[in-house]
Amino acid sequence: MPDPRFFETCDPLTVHDALVLTGASLLSGDRNVLLTSVALCEAEGRPDHVVYCENPALADVLAGREFGLCLTTEQIAVKLAPHGAVAVSQSPRAAFAKIASRLHRLREGAGAAAPSAHPHATISEAAVVATTATLGKGATVGPHVYIGPGVVIGDDTVIEAGVSVTNAVLGARCHICAGAQIGQAGFGFVETQDGLIRVPQLGRVMIGDDVEIGANTTIDRGALGDTGISAGVKIDNLVQIGHNVQIGRYTVIAAQTGISGSCVIGDGVMIGGQVGLADHLTIGDRAQLAAKAGLMRNVPAGEKWGGIPARPVKDWLRETSTLSRLTKKRNG
Amino acid sequence: MPDPRFFETCDPLTVHDALVLTGASLLSGDRNVLLTSVALCEAEGRPDHVVYCENPALADVLAGREFGLCLTTEQIAVKLAPHGAVAVSQSPRAAFAKIASRLHRLREGAGAAAPSAHPHATISEAAVVATTATLGKGATVGPHVYIGPGVVIGDDTVIEAGVSVTNAVLGARCHICAGAQIGQAGFGFVETQDGLIRVPQLGRVMIGDDVEIGANTTIDRGALGDTGISAGVKIDNLVQIGHNVQIGRYTVIAAQTGISGSCVIGDGVMIGGQVGLADHLTIGDRAQLAAKAGLMRNVPAGEKWGGIPARPVKDWLRETSTLSRLTKKRNG
Amino acid sequence: MPDPRFFETCDPLTVHDALVLTGASLLSGDRNVLLTSVALCEAEGRPDHVVYCENPALADVLAGREFGLCLTTEQIAVKLAPHGAVAVSQSPRAAFAKIASRLHRLREGAGAAAPSAHPHATISEAAVVATTATLGKGATVGPHVYIGPGVVIGDDTVIEAGVSVTNAVLGARCHICAGAQIGQAGFGFVETQDGLIRVPQLGRVMIGDDVEIGANTTIDRGALGDTGISAGVKIDNLVQIGHNVQIGRYTVIAAQTGISGSCVIGDGVMIGGQVGLADHLTIGDRAQLAAKAGLMRNVPAGEKWGGIPARPVKDWLRETSTLSRLTKKRNG
Repeated sequence: MPDPRFFETCDPLTVHDALVLTGASLLSGDRNVLLTSVALCEAEGRPDHVVYCENPALADVLAGREFGLCLTTEQIAVKLAPHGAVAVSQSPRAAFAKIASRLHRLREGAGAAAPSAHPHATISEAAVVATTATLGKGATVGPHVYIGPGVVIGDDTVIEAGVSVTNAVLGARCHICAGAQIGQAGFGFVETQDGLIRVPQLGRVMIGDDVEIGANTTIDRGALGDTGISAGVKIDNLVQIGHNVQIGRYTVIAAQTGISGSCVIGDGVMIGGQVGLADHLTIGDRAQLAAKAGLMRNVPAGEKWGGIPARPVKDWLRETSTLSRLTKKRNG
Repeated sequence: MPDPRFFETCDPLTVHDALVLTGASLLSGDRNVLLTSVALCEAEGRPDHVVYCENPALADVLAGREFGLCLTTEQIAVKLAPHGAVAVSQSPRAAFAKIASRLHRLREGAGAAAPSAHPHATISEAAVVATTATLGKGATVGPHVYIGPGVVIGDDTVIEAGVSVTNAVLGARCHICAGAQIGQAGFGFVETQDGLIRVPQLGRVMIGDDVEIGANTTIDRGALGDTGISAGVKIDNLVQIGHNVQIGRYTVIAAQTGISGSCVIGDGVMIGGQVGLADHLTIGDRAQLAAKAGLMRNVPAGEKWGGIPARPVKDWLRETSTLSRLTKKRNG
Repeated sequence: MPDPRFFETCDPLTVHDALVLTGASLLSGDRNVLLTSVALCEAEGRPDHVVYCENPALADVLAGREFGLCLTTEQIAVKLAPHGAVAVSQSPRAAFAKIASRLHRLREGAGAAAPSAHPHATISEAAVVATTATLGKGATVGPHVYIGPGVVIGDDTVIEAGVSVTNAVLGARCHICAGAQIGQAGFGFVETQDGLIRVPQLGRVMIGDDVEIGANTTIDRGALGDTGISAGVKIDNLVQIGHNVQIGRYTVIAAQTGISGSCVIGDGVMIGGQVGLADHLTIGDRAQLAAKAGLMRNVPAGEKWGGIPARPVKDWLRETSTLSRLTKKRNG
């Protein structure tokens, strides 16, 4: 269920409405059940939630859970026990996206608070702070900063010029450098016959205490669930953090690195500059990723990896040296 | 001829004035002809346009065209039929840049419109919208956004906080994420004895319907001609699009990718994160470029390329595996 | 000594205060000496400055210099002649950081000047210019720009929308594209038992005449000492320049390149797109670095390097071709 500080919940739909909206075919279940929200199929089930499933491996997970409506493929549908309505769609994810967009809507600006509404914070006259935002004691908000509706900023956190923060909760003593953009929609699309349609991004960005975020860095909010940056994390300039990424405590990320959606980075990880991670990877605690590495596989705790595609640094350097020697031999 | 919504045309120069300004030597033609604008030598000719040519392969193209003044090298000059004045310069491009700067000038701010000037759009009080800009019905302009003179924003397009849009025309239902910068001058310099001088950037950015542009992404306007993003294109965060790039329909570009000037990308192309393209490349329809690829050659339609320098993915993976096996053999 | 235009100097500390603050143990010297500022141990010595030394190779340098207090390791301490107080700490750099934060403080906004305070410049009504900033004749400041306290902008320099400039001095005729962030704190942390603590960033950004800086590019200020961009340098979009980097005249840097802290780049260097440099490297005059290169070693003047890790381009291309031929042989 999306955080009501950031998202409005609209009128519920019946299963019937959902079928009309998406063109999906009901296989079993009651057309009159009311649907109020959307959830991941791995989440705890509720009888008024819509889920979708395209991955046969998750069918068993779903089989024991409650849901209001599950959008799925024909192949998976037959395996599902009747805990809720089951409908078959050519693109379950696209159908789910359409329903999610109908049930939840990003809250609008709701006006800007006068700086005097936050007497314990220091706010530039040229900043815009939504009336429903909360600023901690001693927080500083620079010029041309936008703090969106429902956002929470912790005590003594400093936000420099030109930053925007939406759909996010920030801890205490954070420092957000100029031009960072936090909480915009992540990059999620699903292909349909009508082209690419956006998958609603209904999550948040949750940032712990003592986090530093560099200039012009971008951190997308979660799709379903949150993007999470733990306490003590230090992120340099021009870094990209995708939706649903989780970063452990005291991890350090150098400039221009990109972390794709749903990666899980451990505690105390050191990531060099211009590193790239494919989506859904896990990087173990205290691992080290060399500058410019291109990660396509998980990295165990404590290991040092580098190269493109990345492998243990020792192997990478040996391979570099092998190639250099073979080339010298050829060229006399 | 630069778009008059974005560029003023200044007083014309005579061929004589142009020679004085640039130090070029007249080889043939009339010193009194009036010059009003600049054009690419590949463009349709006009008798009051200045062109330049440093590429002998284009001499034949020019030979059949009309122009007011062609700045060129001695070697090329002799091949040109007398359709206009021909002058020889040590650096035809630098001479052309000087004349272009004199004939055309970026329009200035021209004041900011009150939000009430656009009753059908929703504009933050903290946005600046030039009086000569046009906003479509249902368009939304966030805080600290700058919409420059002559800019056109389509219906229902959403522009988030901190974006600037200048020298650009955007379609309907686009979504521009926070901090994106659209329409600034591209990176074009020519070396002269006095150091590097800027080549005037007199084009536009033309964006189709249903385009998404990520946070802190930068899209430069065309130099002569336009930068074009077709309908349905999805661009992630921190992407760089150089001047005169053309991107086909429904192409998807992941975060931190950079596309150098004058590349032509087809329809339905998938480009991974942190990919780089050298300038003037052509990528065929539905090609796929792996994350971190470094493109130095054209890619045929439908092919998958990766690696640095990029080659077909199959070759790249084979080479990676060859090197790994040879190294293991050496090290026992 | 930090530039008083940008940093306030707070009340001095005695050596005794410094020991209490940091937990360091006094090895020799007077507890009552007053300390007013911090300096690099390579800098000219002064009897009221705090320095630190963790590098045994610098012990000889320090031995002949004056200082108020030197924070160092046991091993180095014994080599230092008694030119000032010497104290031993488990982390001399962390102790130094704590003292530096106590002695110097970034100046606060000090209010915004009305545009009429700068009658010879053109300032958007939506810009914020600190009352203590200085704008040259003919300078242009766009919407949502922030010019911080003490900043100096040269004649005819143009600053586009959404830029922030703090702790910086810019020359004449510069062009700063939309969204660039100049002068924020660099990325410097020291590990302690309490996690990572920030090393105060007390330097400036010094930018020469005729410099161009691309959209959404970030330039960090120096830590101790300055970040320097020489006259005529051209920097493209989304480039990262770390603290204390020095860039020579007429050097050109393409988009998305990252230059780590304390690199020294010569004159007339050409750097391609998406290049990365490790910290403290020296790149000689007129060197050329190919797009996507990953530099881990110094590059002599005039050489062309490429690849990851970077090597002379000739070697890199030979190695690429060796690998391709070996792979073709294996695969028949």
